[in-house]
Amino acid sequence: MPGIITLTTDFGTRDGYVGAMKGAILSVNPHATVVDISHDIAPQDVVEAAWVLASAYRFFPPETVHVVVVDPGVGSDRLAVAARAGGWHFVGPDNGVLTWATVSAGETRAVELRERRWFRPELSATFHGRDVFGPVAAHLAAGVPLDAFGPGREALTPLPLPSPTVQTDVAIGEVIHVDRFGNLITNITQAVFTEWARGDVTIAVGDDARVGLGRTYADVAPGEALALFGSTGHLEIAVRDGDAAGRFGVGRGSAVVVRNARDGM
Amino acid sequence: MPGIITLTTDFGTRDGYVGAMKGAILSVNPHATVVDISHDIAPQDVVEAAWVLASAYRFFPPETVHVVVVDPGVGSDRLAVAARAGGWHFVGPDNGVLTWATVSAGETRAVELRERRWFRPELSATFHGRDVFGPVAAHLAAGVPLDAFGPGREALTPLPLPSPTVQTDVAIGEVIHVDRFGNLITNITQAVFTEWARGDVTIAVGDDARVGLGRTYADVAPGEALALFGSTGHLEIAVRDGDAAGRFGVGRGSAVVVRNARDGM
Amino acid sequence: MPGIITLTTDFGTRDGYVGAMKGAILSVNPHATVVDISHDIAPQDVVEAAWVLASAYRFFPPETVHVVVVDPGVGSDRLAVAARAGGWHFVGPDNGVLTWATVSAGETRAVELRERRWFRPELSATFHGRDVFGPVAAHLAAGVPLDAFGPGREALTPLPLPSPTVQTDVAIGEVIHVDRFGNLITNITQAVFTEWARGDVTIAVGDDARVGLGRTYADVAPGEALALFGSTGHLEIAVRDGDAAGRFGVGRGSAVVVRNARDGM
Repeated sequence: MPGIITLTTDFGTRDGYVGAMKGAILSVNPHATVVDISHDIAPQDVVEAAWVLASAYRFFPPETVHVVVVDPGVGSDRLAVAARAGGWHFVGPDNGVLTWATVSAGETRAVELRERRWFRPELSATFHGRDVFGPVAAHLAAGVPLDAFGPGREALTPLPLPSPTVQTDVAIGEVIHVDRFGNLITNITQAVFTEWARGDVTIAVGDDARVGLGRTYADVAPGEALALFGSTGHLEIAVRDGDAAGRFGVGRGSAVVVRNARDGM
Repeated sequence: MPGIITLTTDFGTRDGYVGAMKGAILSVNPHATVVDISHDIAPQDVVEAAWVLASAYRFFPPETVHVVVVDPGVGSDRLAVAARAGGWHFVGPDNGVLTWATVSAGETRAVELRERRWFRPELSATFHGRDVFGPVAAHLAAGVPLDAFGPGREALTPLPLPSPTVQTDVAIGEVIHVDRFGNLITNITQAVFTEWARGDVTIAVGDDARVGLGRTYADVAPGEALALFGSTGHLEIAVRDGDAAGRFGVGRGSAVVVRNARDGM
Repeated sequence: MPGIITLTTDFGTRDGYVGAMKGAILSVNPHATVVDISHDIAPQDVVEAAWVLASAYRFFPPETVHVVVVDPGVGSDRLAVAARAGGWHFVGPDNGVLTWATVSAGETRAVELRERRWFRPELSATFHGRDVFGPVAAHLAAGVPLDAFGPGREALTPLPLPSPTVQTDVAIGEVIHVDRFGNLITNITQAVFTEWARGDVTIAVGDDARVGLGRTYADVAPGEALALFGSTGHLEIAVRDGDAAGRFGVGRGSAVVVRNARDGM
C-alpha cells in the first residue's frame, strides 16, 4: 500500500527543500504518489496554509496523507502531530495549521510524534519537513497505524477562524483569502447565508463599492464585479476576467458587509 | 490502464485549486500519472495556454490525456469537450484553447461533455477543472471510450493563429510567445521560411534592430542577439544568456520583419 | 525497474519546456517517477543549480537519476555527460553543474554522452533537456548500464567552490546561496567550524552587523537575527520569521566574518 501523500509548504520552488523532502519520503516509501498542493504559501503564514489545505483535502481519496509544513516554531517545544479525521490522515506541526481541515473533516484522533524510529536517523534542528514529517507521512501511507507514532492527544491546537457577525439586517464578514485571480474569499459560507438572507441582498466591499450576487463569473460582463458562492462554498467577490483585490484595494482581513435589501439600502 | 494525464491551467500554485483538481482525478483513477505542464498561464490567457500545450503535447506517449483549464467562460453556455487527435486525447473548454494542438496533431474526433455520470456528483458553477475536466480525463485515461462522454461535435472552436505575411522579398511575422528566458517566438515556421528564403536574410525586430540568423545560442558571444529556429520549429529572436524581450522592448504581437538580403538591405 | 528521476532546471514553469522534457522521459520509460527539484533556477545560473542539487540529491534512494539542465552552452562543443557517484546517477551538461554533488557523493565514474541511439531521433540544437538528457535519464533509470552511453571521462569539469579563509583568530566565509526565506547560506561547514572554533565566536555580516550563534530559529525572538548550522550542515545567517538578506542588504558573494571571541571582539 504505497498510498498518496500531499504536500503543502512555504518552502518555495527555488531551493532544494521540496526535493529533499520528497527524497526522504521516497527513501521510506518508493512507490508513494506524492502530490504538491502548494509550496508557495507565504513564509510562516499558518493561516494561508490552513486555508489552502482546507480547500483541497476533501477531494483526495480516503487514506490520503496530507502533510503541511509551515513551521515557524521548528526546533522549539511546539509539538509535532499526526491525526486521522474523516478518513484522511494529516501530519504537521501542532500550530493550528491542520485544524480547519480536521475540524471540517469530522471526528479527529490525534497523536504526538514521539517515536523517533519513524524519523530520519540524523535529525536537524531546522528542517523537520525532511527529517520528521516527510518520513512519518511515508510510513503512515505505507500502513503503519497512527498509534505507533506516539501517545494520543486530546485535541489539536485550534486556529481561530474569524466568524461573521450576523444580525437580523446585516451580516459582516471578512476576507480570509485572496486567490491568484484576485478573488476575495470571505468567511461567509453558503450555509450561513442561506439561513440568514431574506431575499435580495446588497453586498459592500472596500470603500463602499456595491456588488450584486450572481452564480458564476460569466453572469456579468468582462471587467464587472459580482459576488458568488465559489468552489469552496464561501461567498467571494470577483471581477470577471479581472482582479477584485486590486480593483477594490482590499486584502485579507477586510470587511465585507451584506445587508438584506428591504432595509432601504 | 491508469494512463498519463497532463495539466495546463491558469490556476497558479499559491492556492488549493491544482491540488483539488488532482485529488478529483486520483479519486477516480488512483494510479494515473499526473504531470504538470504549466499552472502559470496568465489568468484567462487562452492564447498563451494554446501555445504552451501545442509546444509540449507531442512529446508525450500516445494515449496521454492532455487537459487544459483556462476557462473564462466557466458556468456560461460555452461547451466542454473531449477530443482525440493523432493518438492523444484532449479535454477542456471549447474556447479554442485545444485547437492549435489538435489541428497540428491530425484528424480530430471530438465530443461534447454531456454525460454527467463522469462528472463529480456535486457540480460547482465556477470550478469545472475539479468537477468536470479532471474527472473526465481520469475516466478517459482509464479506458472509457470517447463516445461515452457525449454526442459528437463536427469541429472544435478555432483559435485564429496570425499568419505571417509572405511576399517575394519580405516576410512579416509576429511574436506569438515570450518565454521565461525572454526569447521571442514568432509565427514564422522553419517550413514556411525554407520555402521562401532565397539565401541570406536580414531580420529586424523592435525599433529596427537587426539580428543575424544562427543555429544555436552559442553561435554568438554572451550578450549578443541572434535569430534561430528554436525547439518548436519556429523562428525566434534570442539574446545569448540574456533577455531579448527586454533588450528590444517588444512582446507578444510585435512584428518581426525578414527580408531576402539581395534586396539591398 | 522504472526508477526515480529528479529534474533541476532553469526552464521556469510558464512555458511548455518542463512538460516536453517529462513527455520525452515518459515516452522512453512510462512508469518512471519524475520528481521536480526546481525549475526556478535563475536563467543560466550554473552555481545556483549546483548548490540546489548538492543540497537535495543525497536524500533520494540509491539508483535515483538526478538530471540537471542549466545549459548556457547548449549546441556548442560543451560535452554532455552521465556519471555514477555514491550510488546515485547524474546526467547533464559538463559545465560544472553536477560537480559539487558528485564530489560530495564519493568516487565518480563518468561517461560522455555520445551514443545517439539513446537520444530522441530528431535532435534540436537548443533543447537537449528534451532531446538528450531526459531520454538518457529515462534509459539509465530503466537499467541501461552507464558504459552504454559513451566513452569514459577521467573527471567532470570542476566548479570552483570558494573556500573560507581560515586563520587562527578569524574565519572569513562568503554567502553561497540565498534561499526563499532570505536565509544566507555560507561556505563555512559545521566540520570546518568545529575544528577551528575555540569556544564562543562573534559573527559579522553586511555592514558589520553582529549575530550570535544558535541552534534553531526559535532560539531568538521573532524579528531577531542569529547564525546557525542549517539543514545542509552549512553556517547560515537567518532572521526568525524574517528575511536576513533584506535586513542586512547582502547576497551571494557577500563576506561573513567569524572571530574567536577571546580576541577582544
